[in-house]
Amino acid sequence: MEIITLKTNAQTEMIDITDRVQEALDRQGPRDGICMVYVPHTTAGVTINENADPTVRDDILMVLNQMVPSKAPYRHLEGNSPAHVKASLMGASQMVAVAQGRLVLGTWQGIFFCEFDGPRTRKIHVTIA
Amino acid sequence: MEIITLKTNAQTEMIDITDRVQEALDRQGPRDGICMVYVPHTTAGVTINENADPTVRDDILMVLNQMVPSKAPYRHLEGNSPAHVKASLMGASQMVAVAQGRLVLGTWQGIFFCEFDGPRTRKIHVTIA
Amino acid sequence: MEIITLKTNAQTEMIDITDRVQEALDRQGPRDGICMVYVPHTTAGVTINENADPTVRDDILMVLNQMVPSKAPYRHLEGNSPAHVKASLMGASQMVAVAQGRLVLGTWQGIFFCEFDGPRTRKIHVTIA
Repeated sequence: MEIITLKTNAQTEMIDITDRVQEALDRQGPRDGICMVYVPHTTAGVTINENADPTVRDDILMVLNQMVPSKAPYRHLEGNSPAHVKASLMGASQMVAVAQGRLVLGTWQGIFFCEFDGPRTRKIHVTIA
Repeated sequence: MEIITLKTNAQTEMIDITDRVQEALDRQGPRDGICMVYVPHTTAGVTINENADPTVRDDILMVLNQMVPSKAPYRHLEGNSPAHVKASLMGASQMVAVAQGRLVLGTWQGIFFCEFDGPRTRKIHVTIA
Repeated sequence: MEIITLKTNAQTEMIDITDRVQEALDRQGPRDGICMVYVPHTTAGVTINENADPTVRDDILMVLNQMVPSKAPYRHLEGNSPAHVKASLMGASQMVAVAQGRLVLGTWQGIFFCEFDGPRTRKIHVTIA
């Protein structure tokens, strides 16, 4: 397992980690299989979406903010319940095929770390099966 | 990796691809493991849900359309931001166990390709690990 | 594949199954790889989130209930369409790395079975790849 360390810069942010994941795979040699990109946090997630136009990220985060209100009768006293909900909606992991050590992504796809309770220093686990 | 080509017929649509995925596995022989059904697009996704009553699909799409408004101050100029959001909510992949070459699904489960920006010709990648 | 049987107690409920999944892995011996926790139902799901403070679960379920209305012009006549939608939003499976037979989870993470149409007796499949 390779571990990526990432510093996030905002409370809510999608960061393209495709190159970082590929670099982690490069250290494993030219393997075939399935790569798991896993976030060991509960107020962050990971998703796959378009990485050509950065406004796609803005729009995804805007809709998530509308779906999960910042103010509601939340019971969790830390004040970050919206981040926990968004983490479960995006998911703690994404799986991507690996062929001869290269991520097999679609033309417009990138892998995004989704920060929902930043800024923080975060970890990402990259595992091949 | 097996590649399925699929023509979709509507802008928003859930298409049962369970048989197509099983056929792809059949070409791989009687293996055991985990099958990844992966969508290499950013305005489509894949989910597992009931395939007995087709109205379940209608209701899932209706709620997704309510959660992700078609009109909003979206910044992405292609006009398909709702499709990008829905793709991330459903996910780019689903994993299913394979025993002796057969998908291990629950009684009522089917695998659905989720078109959110059709009609288009789409690809689905099927990989066994 | 190991099968866990679970009795749920409410219509909507998140149940921490981390220990049950670890026990299933224990029966497989000290293996390395990726563990799939799979729900073979269409009105239940599985997610990974905080298991320290139980109010996080309450807040996740509260927001899901707001996002997926209990009353709407649903076409599916069984009356459990909201459960089907929530199942697809959370997902039918979660993947977790396994090192020497132990789940590799983050400090605050637990694996939760998400009941959306209970109470029922449910199954969970645990597979290692």
